[in-house]
Amino acid sequence: MNGSAADYLPRAEFVERLRSEGRQRYHDAHRYHQLMHEGKLTREQLQQWVLNRYYYQTRIPIKDALILSKSEDPAFRRLWIHRLRDHDGDTEGEGGLSLWLRLAEGVGLDRQEVAGCGAVLPGVRFACDAYVEFVRHSSLLEAVASSLTEFFAPDIMSKRILAWERHYPWVSADMLGYFRARVTRARLDAEEAVDFVVRHASSPALQELCVAALIRKTEILWHLLDCAYAAYVEPAWGPAGARA
Amino acid sequence: MNGSAADYLPRAEFVERLRSEGRQRYHDAHRYHQLMHEGKLTREQLQQWVLNRYYYQTRIPIKDALILSKSEDPAFRRLWIHRLRDHDGDTEGEGGLSLWLRLAEGVGLDRQEVAGCGAVLPGVRFACDAYVEFVRHSSLLEAVASSLTEFFAPDIMSKRILAWERHYPWVSADMLGYFRARVTRARLDAEEAVDFVVRHASSPALQELCVAALIRKTEILWHLLDCAYAAYVEPAWGPAGARA
Repeated sequence: MNGSAADYLPRAEFVERLRSEGRQRYHDAHRYHQLMHEGKLTREQLQQWVLNRYYYQTRIPIKDALILSKSEDPAFRRLWIHRLRDHDGDTEGEGGLSLWLRLAEGVGLDRQEVAGCGAVLPGVRFACDAYVEFVRHSSLLEAVASSLTEFFAPDIMSKRILAWERHYPWVSADMLGYFRARVTRARLDAEEAVDFVVRHASSPALQELCVAALIRKTEILWHLLDCAYAAYVEPAWGPAGARA
Repeated sequence: MNGSAADYLPRAEFVERLRSEGRQRYHDAHRYHQLMHEGKLTREQLQQWVLNRYYYQTRIPIKDALILSKSEDPAFRRLWIHRLRDHDGDTEGEGGLSLWLRLAEGVGLDRQEVAGCGAVLPGVRFACDAYVEFVRHSSLLEAVASSLTEFFAPDIMSKRILAWERHYPWVSADMLGYFRARVTRARLDAEEAVDFVVRHASSPALQELCVAALIRKTEILWHLLDCAYAAYVEPAWGPAGARA
């Protein structure tokens, strides 16, 4: 086996292929994240990351509902439905979206302004919407494979918590609940998803589609940061939206 | 107010309009149901109703996931998500789909055959798929409005339980759990849905779209029984699928 498109990879090699393709494109290496984790973002640059990323967060339950709608299997749906509940909560004020809005308050933003998504950069919106449309039109298998960036989420969340506590002490540590919750949850989510992907990618062609879906997802995450960087770190040109 | 398309109806009149349009088209008046409730269906006719209707049941969590995917509001999604959980259950063996498969066993069918949906009549499949496609492509408001046939579900379920216990004593009463569960749940579901519809149908045109969505849904339910009737009560002609 050499990992070419013609080979059907056994489980361990397929998982390693996914991890390898994802890892080398994951947005932890983006310069916006590097600046963040080195403590070099200004208050506004940190705020804008929180504000823009919130739009991505709001797309998660929507794409997960689309994934649910693609499955004919109640057992799969029972497994996947907690993702909606994790983000929406079971009651008002619970769940990942609420935690993110607390984070927004923690960095000094107005909760309602962030929740309204009115100041989200156009390119961030395009990329996040592209993710939803990809999931809407892809197969269930590809949609699940695109979630596998969660492989890498626990590490970036752990790193982020340490970096924020060290470099941005003006953000109260108890505002970082979203990141903390995701460390454990993303690991479990990735295990569930990779198990599904491995079992259902039953041909070399399907394995390649899964790799391509994961790569597409890394491009989406990366583009969010490209947009934020262009607007708030190096706003060389652009409309009034570039305010850094 | 005379209920024409040009008028914006206040809440009570709009709800009554919906109820009225729905009630006069609801499938409790279909001759297949009339035969069922009068105890005049043969064992096979009852079985085939259970088998074919199961395909409709399997579409419910799919269309509810699509409805979730259409909402930008975590509060709405928190309200609606129980519908998926009601049908799928939180663990294997729970939920409406499992209860329906118990019913299938109760009428003497093979659980796996019913679950596989391989013997579903073509027209039943077309109608059920049309419901999913309607929900997929309609607005959130219309999709929710199409669920309002639940107004009438508690009555038909109550009638059905009594009729089955009386006329089909060979079906063990403890197999009727699905119908019992729906009496209370459908009432709550309809209240939630009508509240949403009334609040969001903010123009005469939107009110008319809601009425049209509900009528479309009644047509879908009615067509299921037309197909079952043609195949199993009066199979005058047709391919091998018509076995009554």
